[in-house]
Amino acid sequence: MAEAVRHDKTARQLRLLSDALDSGRLGPVRRLVNTLSPAEIGNLLESLPKAQRTVVWGLVDPEDDGEVLLHVGDEVREGLIADMDPDEIVAAVEDLDIDDLADLVEDLPDTVLDEVLKSMDRDNRERLEQVLSYDEGSAGRLMNPDVVTVRTDTTIDVVLRYLRLRGELPDHTDHLYVVSRRHQYLGRIALQSLLTSEPNMPVNRLIDDEQPAIDVHESEGDVARQFSDHDWISAPVVDDNNILLGRITIDDVVDIIREQAEHQALGAAGLGEDEDLFSPVPRATKRRLLWLGINLGTAFLASSVVGQFQTTIAHIVALAVLMPIVAGMGGNAGTQVLALVVRGLALGQLGASNVQVLIWKEVRVAALNGLMLGLVLGLIVWAWFGEWPLALVIASALTINLLMAALAGVLVPVTLKRMGFDPALAGGVILTTVTDVMGFLSFLGLATLVLVR
Amino acid sequence: MAEAVRHDKTARQLRLLSDALDSGRLGPVRRLVNTLSPAEIGNLLESLPKAQRTVVWGLVDPEDDGEVLLHVGDEVREGLIADMDPDEIVAAVEDLDIDDLADLVEDLPDTVLDEVLKSMDRDNRERLEQVLSYDEGSAGRLMNPDVVTVRTDTTIDVVLRYLRLRGELPDHTDHLYVVSRRHQYLGRIALQSLLTSEPNMPVNRLIDDEQPAIDVHESEGDVARQFSDHDWISAPVVDDNNILLGRITIDDVVDIIREQAEHQALGAAGLGEDEDLFSPVPRATKRRLLWLGINLGTAFLASSVVGQFQTTIAHIVALAVLMPIVAGMGGNAGTQVLALVVRGLALGQLGASNVQVLIWKEVRVAALNGLMLGLVLGLIVWAWFGEWPLALVIASALTINLLMAALAGVLVPVTLKRMGFDPALAGGVILTTVTDVMGFLSFLGLATLVLVR
Repeated sequence: MAEAVRHDKTARQLRLLSDALDSGRLGPVRRLVNTLSPAEIGNLLESLPKAQRTVVWGLVDPEDDGEVLLHVGDEVREGLIADMDPDEIVAAVEDLDIDDLADLVEDLPDTVLDEVLKSMDRDNRERLEQVLSYDEGSAGRLMNPDVVTVRTDTTIDVVLRYLRLRGELPDHTDHLYVVSRRHQYLGRIALQSLLTSEPNMPVNRLIDDEQPAIDVHESEGDVARQFSDHDWISAPVVDDNNILLGRITIDDVVDIIREQAEHQALGAAGLGEDEDLFSPVPRATKRRLLWLGINLGTAFLASSVVGQFQTTIAHIVALAVLMPIVAGMGGNAGTQVLALVVRGLALGQLGASNVQVLIWKEVRVAALNGLMLGLVLGLIVWAWFGEWPLALVIASALTINLLMAALAGVLVPVTLKRMGFDPALAGGVILTTVTDVMGFLSFLGLATLVLVR
Repeated sequence: MAEAVRHDKTARQLRLLSDALDSGRLGPVRRLVNTLSPAEIGNLLESLPKAQRTVVWGLVDPEDDGEVLLHVGDEVREGLIADMDPDEIVAAVEDLDIDDLADLVEDLPDTVLDEVLKSMDRDNRERLEQVLSYDEGSAGRLMNPDVVTVRTDTTIDVVLRYLRLRGELPDHTDHLYVVSRRHQYLGRIALQSLLTSEPNMPVNRLIDDEQPAIDVHESEGDVARQFSDHDWISAPVVDDNNILLGRITIDDVVDIIREQAEHQALGAAGLGEDEDLFSPVPRATKRRLLWLGINLGTAFLASSVVGQFQTTIAHIVALAVLMPIVAGMGGNAGTQVLALVVRGLALGQLGASNVQVLIWKEVRVAALNGLMLGLVLGLIVWAWFGEWPLALVIASALTINLLMAALAGVLVPVTLKRMGFDPALAGGVILTTVTDVMGFLSFLGLATLVLVR
């Protein structure tokens, strides 16, 4: 319900913008767009069909171009970059932070990338190359090398004077990092404690060395989990020798958490999280076709099971009427278990030590539901077709399929994970294949045994 | 794949813990548990079956009890509280921040709540009552009334002296808030600028009044979106008269984003995001039963369509074999569109102005896929059953059902949203009912028209 009462600022802007675009006068559109933050502009661009998107993109203040590109999905981004001149692209990206630039690099045309690298000073170019040397999806790719460090052998007063000289600090600086002569990470000092301590206090009395540094090779999923487990705003990144390399900030972590959520929601339907709502028809068709093709294959598998029982069905046509119920209910019950298990795996809550307990719990739940729903289903079928053996067959088949669904709901994702696949992506297809096949097999098989004489 | 290479710290801890528990010696378990942060302990408790959970919960350092309770789902929390004495509960929660306490209040037994209220000083009790007076899911419930404010008519130097006197600042303080005599919000000053400015600078030269304050009645979804659009660490909350009431911090926003993601992933399977992996069997059974009951109803709806064509099926049994393919493929195609549209709606990207464009895009995608997959399916059916009219019928039925799936994939969630329902929850059931009914109707209907003479 919270979703429903949302003020829907974007939807409102969209309506205003759409009216302005329809009127054909671009002045008001430009004014409207440039009252928004880059993230809001990005969201707005994603919600526009291709033609309008190009028009609005042309009206965005060039100063915001780089930030906007950071806030749209890969597919939309490609399209926006394709609409820009090389000079525009260079101008847009050259002022970005190193970690943000690293995020964009692979979407830039090679010639443009060369220009960007040439326009950077040597220091920054080296920093960018360092960030790019780490794997995508690792802490190294998320970090910003721009950090403020201090040494232990000094006082607050000296630090304060240094900060005043330095002027502005990097965004989201909540701690200064204390390093050794060899730039090894020793701990951090909160800006807060700088403000609330006496000026003559030595720095080493204020060091907080409780926060562990993040290993540069750690996965971004682990980074996100640590941030949310410990309520961090920023965290230092170090290499294998504990040398301080940079800093990860919460804003990038929030983006990762959002992406993970989208990855799971869209991945289960066979879509990438960067899918553009308004992708060109040929591209969207091609991508969906692959997924539907896989599903066609599994559908044939289930059909071939039904095919084995054509004689039985020819005898008792009611079986054809009822068989989708058994298969479908198994799919629904299994999907519930799958959803729970996928979440448990993502949170690291499921391992060898408790999978058996979970299976035993789910099997009991399935047995109870199978008995109760089987009773209801049996009674309805008896009332509909007036044959109690048929009612008995469907009630038993439902219970069997719910049990199979419970087993598959736990074992399919756990096995996928163990084999190194993402259970959120492939789990659903495999699960419903199991429940379809087992649903048809148990129902039509039992019917052949019991009803056909 | 990122998921697969995760270090799975929790899973590792779980294994260690499980071994320690099995050995029956609780000393090592206690030591292991108390090296973890409250969030990690919460995650660990969620991953333990009930009996082990009670043992481990008894070993947690009482100082961490309150924080741990904040980091588990509602269902697990209830169980943990049920294991505690009233005195323990009071001790656990009385030191929590006001916003966190507000989060727990409704799970506390009434007698315990009275004790907690009695143990608080009047100021804090009034603050808690104020926070509780706002709706759940609103900004008012998220805010912490503990903020540091300064006035305009002073200098940095005075502020710095005030901060040193005050000592520790509330967690995640990155800005001080500037208020008028009547406590109206005027703007904020970054701790950074306090550190980098000259001491004699007047406060009003440093005020940043660009960040809009959050309305206390705003929904938590809107709050989360603003935080991630603007990369905020904290934001002021005001009432209708612009009086500063409190402050929301990014750590609570991260929790909301995670909850929203879980709500969507589990909600689509008819589960609440607070579902305990190891709920007691009777409770889990009851909850699943409701969902499966709804699905049983929709399954009968689809079956009754098949029931209308029993004579046709008795003629041509191959129809029974093939009909699940048409229905199932429609469900898969529709689910893809649904997933895209639900995301678009959640981001506010879809409104009256662009729904038509989207429908037109999806209809073209469905038509193309319908033709191509229909051709493949038709060829396979022709090869299998050797009858080209049957092949033609199934190819046409598939195309029709994919078109219906595209329409339903857009219109079902958009309509649900317009009616004030959460499209992520009910969308899937309604969609697959549409695609099942239309799949059976188009395939068996066409077959009756074309094949039965």
